[in-house]
Amino acid sequence: MKKFEKIVTWIQEEVRTGKMISGEKIPSEQELSEQFQVSRQTVRRALEELVKQNIVESRRGSGSYICEEAGSILGNIERKRSDHEEKRIAVMLTYIDTYIFPIIVREIEKKVTQAGGILQIAMTDNSVAKERMHLEEFLRTRRIDGLIAEPVKSGLPNPNLDLYQKLQKSGIPVLFVNSFYENLTIPHVSLDDEKAGYIATKHLLECGHTRIAGIFKADDGQGRMRYAGYTKALMEHSHKIKNRQILWIDSEDIREMELVSERILKRLNGCTACVCYNDEIASKLIQILQSADLQVPDQISVIGIDNSNLARFCEVPITSVNNPANEIGKCAAQIILDKIDKNMEMYSAEFAPELVMRNSVKLYNEVM
Amino acid sequence: MKKFEKIVTWIQEEVRTGKMISGEKIPSEQELSEQFQVSRQTVRRALEELVKQNIVESRRGSGSYICEEAGSILGNIERKRSDHEEKRIAVMLTYIDTYIFPIIVREIEKKVTQAGGILQIAMTDNSVAKERMHLEEFLRTRRIDGLIAEPVKSGLPNPNLDLYQKLQKSGIPVLFVNSFYENLTIPHVSLDDEKAGYIATKHLLECGHTRIAGIFKADDGQGRMRYAGYTKALMEHSHKIKNRQILWIDSEDIREMELVSERILKRLNGCTACVCYNDEIASKLIQILQSADLQVPDQISVIGIDNSNLARFCEVPITSVNNPANEIGKCAAQIILDKIDKNMEMYSAEFAPELVMRNSVKLYNEVM
Repeated sequence: MKKFEKIVTWIQEEVRTGKMISGEKIPSEQELSEQFQVSRQTVRRALEELVKQNIVESRRGSGSYICEEAGSILGNIERKRSDHEEKRIAVMLTYIDTYIFPIIVREIEKKVTQAGGILQIAMTDNSVAKERMHLEEFLRTRRIDGLIAEPVKSGLPNPNLDLYQKLQKSGIPVLFVNSFYENLTIPHVSLDDEKAGYIATKHLLECGHTRIAGIFKADDGQGRMRYAGYTKALMEHSHKIKNRQILWIDSEDIREMELVSERILKRLNGCTACVCYNDEIASKLIQILQSADLQVPDQISVIGIDNSNLARFCEVPITSVNNPANEIGKCAAQIILDKIDKNMEMYSAEFAPELVMRNSVKLYNEVM
Repeated sequence: MKKFEKIVTWIQEEVRTGKMISGEKIPSEQELSEQFQVSRQTVRRALEELVKQNIVESRRGSGSYICEEAGSILGNIERKRSDHEEKRIAVMLTYIDTYIFPIIVREIEKKVTQAGGILQIAMTDNSVAKERMHLEEFLRTRRIDGLIAEPVKSGLPNPNLDLYQKLQKSGIPVLFVNSFYENLTIPHVSLDDEKAGYIATKHLLECGHTRIAGIFKADDGQGRMRYAGYTKALMEHSHKIKNRQILWIDSEDIREMELVSERILKRLNGCTACVCYNDEIASKLIQILQSADLQVPDQISVIGIDNSNLARFCEVPITSVNNPANEIGKCAAQIILDKIDKNMEMYSAEFAPELVMRNSVKLYNEVM
């Protein structure tokens, strides 16, 4: 192989495996000459060849870019499903064994199997490193026909957004469940999280509470949306948003809530009710309150969101806002199957939350 | 294509797609001549050709059989994983969203991902029809490198055993979890179910109970093994096995236990304790007993098996026997990965059960 051909082959391979996508700027002449230990002359020869093949285009004064059609010229052979191959959909979730996630997986599995496809699963543990590993694998092997993903820490800047975009550009439809990234134009299927926070807070207000604390998850987009609903409800009832009564915690804190119990008790001091990001936090809060001799709901009311088994089976069954996990799973599977099978446009869907009353909330005038 | 070539191509295809496997008898000359509407002469010509290709061998007076090497001659091109392809393991369970199953899936996903593989999931709903559909798909597409399966209704004759064997013969390792089929030589990873039934029953005996009923699942192998442990413990304590006190129910009954409640109450009449096949049955039994004004454990003791969340969160927390679902998941994944990666021999593993005491059992002399 001649020197210039090494560069040509390398770029072809990067495109074929999705590491470079159409519209992406390729390394500069100088970078390439250093990387391959060749003269600028040789780099230019390679670029000429790539331009001739319609893989790369030069933009005056700006550099060289991967052409729009490069992917289909080089990559589509591998990508196209033959008639004999099954349709393969991946579902990538933070967890698969707890909370509302098993229900989502179950419903997606049913739909995908009914449609003659197979379901591949991946778990991120809400870690961007694991998410990156899975996304790189999807790109490298190019063997999935669609991805249903739960975003990792969607409330924070995520270093992996480029990979979601590359998947999309390489022709693999991507759909988010439970949450979404604000700066990506990728549709999602989820609960209307702002409304869920709103409904939970409104219920406490209607029960006569005025000093209502909130504990929200800082790293997930749902936390921000549920917080937005909380503030909206308070403002509608002409209550001030008091920073002292709002506590942000993250996935790590939730795992070891006993470590933050002092902080929580201090913030809740003086409040008669608390809106919790989800049932997991609500059930752990109830434990913390009770071990500090604060009775729920006699002294303080607690409300959760998601209506999970935790809410049902908690020592004090928790009033919560329903998250229709089964509907979300079904709907997500349908949207991505319609895209794959019929090339229908994908769209976002948000489900309306509903209050489910149990025993963790009391009228304010009955508070001891 | 000549007439005889149609037969040749058909048999080649059947072998390639795993529908016929080595050692299998092929249709007789007469059957083939009817099926293809050709003369016996033409059939013989096709068989001669297949014998020449080492696909088929004739056994005098017995018929024609697929040769040992037929699969590798015709099929291996498709089967062999290229270096670029990922290792793909399928896990097929009765359910994936409830009970101890999500934990098993989680542990398998972790191990498979760590080993650079991907995990495909399939759910059977404990239905042989769904199981058959999935197994046929695995055989047809030949894209999995290993299968971890929970048997469907392993306590009953299963019409799909041929497909498990075909998978094995086609070089795809198969491992069972939770249970196994007695007449297949396929290894399994599970709880020692006989011991679990034994420990549960022995605990009640040691608490002074003598009239101990048992409710077992009729359609799963675990039911038979747990029943075996129950009878063993009774016999060791010189108690007679009383048919009247033993009740067999199946998966459908468990879904609608209220329909069998009269039957259950009649059978338990006179008993002071009951061994339940699992926590699901135990928790539903407690409901049935309490709605008949029988207090647990004051009037009757109930013990479960599996130590699932249901046991923890039941109105009366249930004394149960631990099923280490996480260890089972880990171990199953390791065995199949060692087979795929290092061609190590697969083996069966049974985990020792342990008693977990809660509130559903009382000493006999304290029974009201």
